[in-house]
Amino acid sequence: MVDPQPTTPTPGVLVLHGPNLNLLGEREPEIYGATTLVALDAQLAEAAAELALRLRSAQANAEGALIDLLHEARNIDQGVIFNPGGYTHTSVALHDAIRAIRIPVVEVHLSNLYKREGFRQRSVTAAACAGVIMGFGPSAYRLALHQLAELLRRPRLPSS
Amino acid sequence: MVDPQPTTPTPGVLVLHGPNLNLLGEREPEIYGATTLVALDAQLAEAAAELALRLRSAQANAEGALIDLLHEARNIDQGVIFNPGGYTHTSVALHDAIRAIRIPVVEVHLSNLYKREGFRQRSVTAAACAGVIMGFGPSAYRLALHQLAELLRRPRLPSS
Amino acid sequence: MVDPQPTTPTPGVLVLHGPNLNLLGEREPEIYGATTLVALDAQLAEAAAELALRLRSAQANAEGALIDLLHEARNIDQGVIFNPGGYTHTSVALHDAIRAIRIPVVEVHLSNLYKREGFRQRSVTAAACAGVIMGFGPSAYRLALHQLAELLRRPRLPSS
Amino acid sequence: MVDPQPTTPTPGVLVLHGPNLNLLGEREPEIYGATTLVALDAQLAEAAAELALRLRSAQANAEGALIDLLHEARNIDQGVIFNPGGYTHTSVALHDAIRAIRIPVVEVHLSNLYKREGFRQRSVTAAACAGVIMGFGPSAYRLALHQLAELLRRPRLPSS
Amino acid sequence: MVDPQPTTPTPGVLVLHGPNLNLLGEREPEIYGATTLVALDAQLAEAAAELALRLRSAQANAEGALIDLLHEARNIDQGVIFNPGGYTHTSVALHDAIRAIRIPVVEVHLSNLYKREGFRQRSVTAAACAGVIMGFGPSAYRLALHQLAELLRRPRLPSS
Amino acid sequence: MVDPQPTTPTPGVLVLHGPNLNLLGEREPEIYGATTLVALDAQLAEAAAELALRLRSAQANAEGALIDLLHEARNIDQGVIFNPGGYTHTSVALHDAIRAIRIPVVEVHLSNLYKREGFRQRSVTAAACAGVIMGFGPSAYRLALHQLAELLRRPRLPSS
Amino acid sequence: MVDPQPTTPTPGVLVLHGPNLNLLGEREPEIYGATTLVALDAQLAEAAAELALRLRSAQANAEGALIDLLHEARNIDQGVIFNPGGYTHTSVALHDAIRAIRIPVVEVHLSNLYKREGFRQRSVTAAACAGVIMGFGPSAYRLALHQLAELLRRPRLPSS
Amino acid sequence: MVDPQPTTPTPGVLVLHGPNLNLLGEREPEIYGATTLVALDAQLAEAAAELALRLRSAQANAEGALIDLLHEARNIDQGVIFNPGGYTHTSVALHDAIRAIRIPVVEVHLSNLYKREGFRQRSVTAAACAGVIMGFGPSAYRLALHQLAELLRRPRLPSS
Amino acid sequence: MVDPQPTTPTPGVLVLHGPNLNLLGEREPEIYGATTLVALDAQLAEAAAELALRLRSAQANAEGALIDLLHEARNIDQGVIFNPGGYTHTSVALHDAIRAIRIPVVEVHLSNLYKREGFRQRSVTAAACAGVIMGFGPSAYRLALHQLAELLRRPRLPSS
Amino acid sequence: MVDPQPTTPTPGVLVLHGPNLNLLGEREPEIYGATTLVALDAQLAEAAAELALRLRSAQANAEGALIDLLHEARNIDQGVIFNPGGYTHTSVALHDAIRAIRIPVVEVHLSNLYKREGFRQRSVTAAACAGVIMGFGPSAYRLALHQLAELLRRPRLPSS
Amino acid sequence: MVDPQPTTPTPGVLVLHGPNLNLLGEREPEIYGATTLVALDAQLAEAAAELALRLRSAQANAEGALIDLLHEARNIDQGVIFNPGGYTHTSVALHDAIRAIRIPVVEVHLSNLYKREGFRQRSVTAAACAGVIMGFGPSAYRLALHQLAELLRRPRLPSS
Amino acid sequence: MVDPQPTTPTPGVLVLHGPNLNLLGEREPEIYGATTLVALDAQLAEAAAELALRLRSAQANAEGALIDLLHEARNIDQGVIFNPGGYTHTSVALHDAIRAIRIPVVEVHLSNLYKREGFRQRSVTAAACAGVIMGFGPSAYRLALHQLAELLRRPRLPSS
Repeated sequence: MVDPQPTTPTPGVLVLHGPNLNLLGEREPEIYGATTLVALDAQLAEAAAELALRLRSAQANAEGALIDLLHEARNIDQGVIFNPGGYTHTSVALHDAIRAIRIPVVEVHLSNLYKREGFRQRSVTAAACAGVIMGFGPSAYRLALHQLAELLRRPRLPSS
Repeated sequence: MVDPQPTTPTPGVLVLHGPNLNLLGEREPEIYGATTLVALDAQLAEAAAELALRLRSAQANAEGALIDLLHEARNIDQGVIFNPGGYTHTSVALHDAIRAIRIPVVEVHLSNLYKREGFRQRSVTAAACAGVIMGFGPSAYRLALHQLAELLRRPRLPSS
Repeated sequence: MVDPQPTTPTPGVLVLHGPNLNLLGEREPEIYGATTLVALDAQLAEAAAELALRLRSAQANAEGALIDLLHEARNIDQGVIFNPGGYTHTSVALHDAIRAIRIPVVEVHLSNLYKREGFRQRSVTAAACAGVIMGFGPSAYRLALHQLAELLRRPRLPSS
Repeated sequence: MVDPQPTTPTPGVLVLHGPNLNLLGEREPEIYGATTLVALDAQLAEAAAELALRLRSAQANAEGALIDLLHEARNIDQGVIFNPGGYTHTSVALHDAIRAIRIPVVEVHLSNLYKREGFRQRSVTAAACAGVIMGFGPSAYRLALHQLAELLRRPRLPSS
Repeated sequence: MVDPQPTTPTPGVLVLHGPNLNLLGEREPEIYGATTLVALDAQLAEAAAELALRLRSAQANAEGALIDLLHEARNIDQGVIFNPGGYTHTSVALHDAIRAIRIPVVEVHLSNLYKREGFRQRSVTAAACAGVIMGFGPSAYRLALHQLAELLRRPRLPSS
Repeated sequence: MVDPQPTTPTPGVLVLHGPNLNLLGEREPEIYGATTLVALDAQLAEAAAELALRLRSAQANAEGALIDLLHEARNIDQGVIFNPGGYTHTSVALHDAIRAIRIPVVEVHLSNLYKREGFRQRSVTAAACAGVIMGFGPSAYRLALHQLAELLRRPRLPSS
Repeated sequence: MVDPQPTTPTPGVLVLHGPNLNLLGEREPEIYGATTLVALDAQLAEAAAELALRLRSAQANAEGALIDLLHEARNIDQGVIFNPGGYTHTSVALHDAIRAIRIPVVEVHLSNLYKREGFRQRSVTAAACAGVIMGFGPSAYRLALHQLAELLRRPRLPSS
Repeated sequence: MVDPQPTTPTPGVLVLHGPNLNLLGEREPEIYGATTLVALDAQLAEAAAELALRLRSAQANAEGALIDLLHEARNIDQGVIFNPGGYTHTSVALHDAIRAIRIPVVEVHLSNLYKREGFRQRSVTAAACAGVIMGFGPSAYRLALHQLAELLRRPRLPSS
Repeated sequence: MVDPQPTTPTPGVLVLHGPNLNLLGEREPEIYGATTLVALDAQLAEAAAELALRLRSAQANAEGALIDLLHEARNIDQGVIFNPGGYTHTSVALHDAIRAIRIPVVEVHLSNLYKREGFRQRSVTAAACAGVIMGFGPSAYRLALHQLAELLRRPRLPSS
Repeated sequence: MVDPQPTTPTPGVLVLHGPNLNLLGEREPEIYGATTLVALDAQLAEAAAELALRLRSAQANAEGALIDLLHEARNIDQGVIFNPGGYTHTSVALHDAIRAIRIPVVEVHLSNLYKREGFRQRSVTAAACAGVIMGFGPSAYRLALHQLAELLRRPRLPSS
Repeated sequence: MVDPQPTTPTPGVLVLHGPNLNLLGEREPEIYGATTLVALDAQLAEAAAELALRLRSAQANAEGALIDLLHEARNIDQGVIFNPGGYTHTSVALHDAIRAIRIPVVEVHLSNLYKREGFRQRSVTAAACAGVIMGFGPSAYRLALHQLAELLRRPRLPSS
Repeated sequence: MVDPQPTTPTPGVLVLHGPNLNLLGEREPEIYGATTLVALDAQLAEAAAELALRLRSAQANAEGALIDLLHEARNIDQGVIFNPGGYTHTSVALHDAIRAIRIPVVEVHLSNLYKREGFRQRSVTAAACAGVIMGFGPSAYRLALHQLAELLRRPRLPSS
């Protein structure tokens, strides 16, 4: 299904993990599951290969570093899967960064935020994203990857 | 339609469309897109076939009818994809129905609710669902179907 | 002024069950108990017989159907026991229906709403009712029946 | 004043009465007046005849039925007079239905909602309507009819 | 202009335009339309003549002047059509003035306030008025005039 | 498991009246009725005798005294009927006392709080109680007594 | 102390000081002034004598004791001057007690509550009182005494 | 310290009546009483004479005019009795004017605002005043006059 | 730097001072400074001369007068510097006036509103202005003048 | 470590336990622990002896009694350790009492209030205290004792 | 007191750009304009030279880095122009940093925040700043520079 | 300093200082005191030595760096004393980090937050901590150290 010709560049996707996700698998496994971040990234790399997507992963605990990584993505990637973690609920700066980079960003969360504490029920970042997927554990990332694959392939249909 | 072999029944999924979705394709296409409900159901049927899922679709404008359809699903299906439409934001009765049927329900929305009016920013039903996918147009339903397929297949893996 | 003769009609009471109560006994028994709706109605029928009350039961998942049943009751019954279920918290239309029929309505809830989620702590319908009984499981209905019996018998006391 | 030529179709208006309005004249007459719904519809029919408008009336207590009636109107009528009753204050689904049908809808209320309980001071449906008339009893409907007559005649001016 | 016959005086109506309405036709025509205040008053004068009503118009930008004009009306007119403009949302003093004069006041707005900014969604003055008409441009005034005509003629029916 | 012998102690119930209830019958009879507290206690004593319950009554205007009485009840009684009066809406200390004593407490109110001022619409104490009965005048206490009788007799049923 | 002549009994007033007022003069003099409670009561006694009023003073730190004192006053006094202190802002029980006793109560505060912390800006008790005087130090009590004198003398005017 | 000689100027007080108070006696007498503004001013003039105070009265419906009158008072009077009417609840400009003039201002209201609609329960102006007296009808003004008299005489006490 | 040719009209700016600013220099100098309004206007006139701007100053305490002055400015001036004083926080009418006149308005405040009382933290008027400058005393006006000078000169650049 | 000289009085501390703490050890041990109040007081007495502090303990369920005990402490003790229990969240009267006594008060709570129900997340009393220690069970009291010891010894340092 | 000699150091200003401002000119130019950050800094450097100010510029996306830069400025610069970007609305840490450094900080924003989304209408940082300038694009920085120049030169005026 | 015996390792504690605490002693000493961070750390080191605790100190202004330091602590230390500074009130990411590391964290604040601005009255981080100590200056840290010492020694008691 993918165009084999060299002139068509492979679309790239950045998977960006927010604060505390470096402890995935260790941190509150009853909420976030037992898969480690390394294992999750490996799963996503495999899925990306099947979808003929280039994949980069990054994690940062700092709001500013996440902004830097989003800025950098606008020159390297065609889409972003972003789990803003605890910054989801308050960060206007990340909201602005997502709007600034003008490539589609899909917000993902491992848990269903609507089932959790009141202070997790609001997303400041989501209003700047293409859409949101929450509540399926690591599968949320895989669904986002499929959605971006479909989205990024779409404009290339005429060229095939 | 159902696999006659007694050992592995084909899992069934109900796609349940809430109020005003019968006008899909005609109603505010700048928000909800140009795909009609018939076309959407056909796409989902095709995707379900590929995933070896049994698929039923239903649409209702009435809150009570949606509750009835959810109740009915608990005896027929193994999972539900549900777009509660305008009832998303206020219906405790639908929240209760989802909790009552004890099969996984995935909430979907065609548009990203976080980008819309204030009264659409709250979901009463989501807290009773397994997860939420919003903002990718008809693809939201397809992603939900994949997620349910994975979820429903999981316990059968050893038997394969 | 009261007719002492045996033609004195037996007062009638409608027991009206709101959304999801058809699943009683099956639905979240840790909250709502293991008694089914059929069993509950049988218990109430027995209690009504002891109290010399005529009893009718009805259940509906639709807000509109509940309004219709309330309207109908004003010509058939002298009082209503009403569990509005999930509509309790938002339905101005049911509030209006209760006010419109001008016969006493007692609001009942199986669980103590004050112990549950925030969105269940408000009752829009209660302000139109004679009173509220909540938190004793099926007994809430029985207590309401006794209260209506007393209320409806009261003007007949001189005749006894 | 009305165009006698057969090629110009008579504009049609649906008068849609929401929950509890079937009890008009009987229900809380100190608030809603003593005119019955039948009498009100007869008055409106007479007024419509004078304005050379086709008039249909409908009443429903169910939110879903009201949505169905609005959907149906988009193929039959050129305008709607709608009293959403108790659904006014919460129904996003009716708001969406009004927006979906793309013919002008005038919201009417018999009483002045600003003089009543706090939970009646908000209209979710009004933001989807052309305008709102409240507080004049049955006259609110008649004023709405005149307004729709003027509105629907306007594009025919060149043809006269 | 006033009926010389002593038995049936012609009812008088004051049309009172609030702040910034002197710029009507010039000010944000995409919201308020292109009709000037002079033209609007002329249309209303014509309509009043047809309805055998005496009509006076006044406009003021000052809250205090509007209060004075309302006070004055109680000795001259039998009803008021009032567009309180930006004072609608905060003025307790105008609310009190409307209540003080004890003749019916109809609140009108050119635009549908429910479609506009949050700070325009509340009316402090409306709770003191007979009713509200909003969202039909200059027609809102004409409808109010018809409503007042009907209201003011009503007690005279026996004498006719 | 239950002792079948005649020494089985009679279950005891404390009826605890909160602030201002000493003025019952005299205080705002249009809201609280004309029955005095002495008369009410007499009625309840009679009803308790019929239900084979031991009954004690107490009234206090002080929050601290009510806490003391609740504490004392845990060693004397098997259940409490409690009307916290004006403390209902704010008293965390009474909430804590009810939770501390670990015997069932039924909250009662003579009037339907949902029909009264806004500051009476919240119950801080109810969340610590078994359930709530409100709005039937003195009958609220009688219904609570029946409910406690049933509750306290239940484990003794096999022995009867 | 009371005038023995049966025809015109001297009206009696209770001055009721709430929590912490026993420390008056010592407690935060920059807010509450340097006059002690004993001195204040002496001043009021003198003023009462001039006004031919019987005066009793009482102070209590306990909410329940204040309720008791208000109840007692209804049989002894014809009016009450009440400074509810810190209970002003939350006590529904005192609000109820004031309403229950049916003699006029004037609420006084030494300081102007509108100039102080947010949690002092609400008065729950004031809605049950005849009026409120705040912000003039001990003079607030004296003004209240004059107001009660006028009020209580008024019906006796014909007899004088 | 103060000059005891007859040149000691008589302190002057401005009684400033806000919007709609020109209709006093005519406007909602069940709330505001039957005394006219002229009669009230005459009563106050008499009371001022007894207190050896110079008295000026003014009334204005306009917020700006009230600000002007307050500004003017700072050069003429030593104190102000101010009923800001409907501006009480919102006017920051009047709050600022009261602070600006640096002579004591006593806020008065004929009715007890705590017994009225929610939008009358807040005073923006009171925080700038010396104190507040509300709820005694015209007596509120008289009490304020006495308070100002005492306040303005105080430094002269040693000289007497 | 300024174009000397007679054909280019000198841009005009209105400096509009809101309520209580006539007392500048006298009123709460610790907040608003010691400069009088006359001195401030003189400073601004000098600065305007340097910037080759025509300058007019006006002050009014009345909201209506400020609206009139803004309306007038649209025919005389090319920009406005506006300090709405206490009306900043509530006046929808001034917001509407600013929008109506369609010339740039810069909102200025002498003090930094974010450091003051809660009721000064909201600006209703600012949303209609080009921008806001607050917190530098009289310099706020001078900065606004420079900003308007730059803005008004900009379209003349091609002509130079 | 303590100065043996007789002239230096031993500082005294009052440990004041609020409502329901008399049930400590029995009441909800999963939250408040199994230590009884007697045992806790014994532990504190021992710790006080080591710190050369005089210690008194008191417990009361009544708000008024707690105020009395605080007032009394100002003449007997140099500091207070206070657990206001359920009064923490609403009691302005206790806040005022703490401020009135002008000796340092340390607020303690056995549980971490931030982990509990919403209505326990606010402390009205804390703003009047020197500081707050919460969430360490009985150790909270011991830490408070150490802090007071340090605080009360500090001024004696020069004398050592 | 000021040193008149040529060693008088040139006052220094730090221009501190917050998150996402590194993308200025590229990011949402319809809101933030087409000027790049490099160009803006160059303009400011030129303006600073004219004003005889030393100028340093810095940009950081991280909240912590911005705090570090503010801390550093207190030893190098005499004033700061700060655009906190998305941190404006929530950052207490930046508020504290501004207060900590005790040199004047002027908050600037390119856009008029009052015209934007609700979550941009609050500034946590502004309350710690000398003043705020918003809504004039890059000119906001230039105006702030002029204001700081004036402020920093002021004490040197006598020496000139 | 560490116990060489392999069986009983010395427990380690991280003292983690949040944003702006590097300026301690210099920054607003009237609130935070005159002790520098170096001095505070030295005092704590001394206290730790007495308690046979290993102590590490760290300070960071960046939220992300604080998260990193907390993560690191879970492998090095047995407890944490954490002053989250300005991040206390909003940081869900720090809340998550504290929960993730599963060693006890004690939140400390130098000042009593309940006495300060409204935006400092909420702690998002505290709900993830073992407890909170606030308002005693540097002593808050010392008390936390004692509490951790007791907590960490407790399981070792049998081994001693």
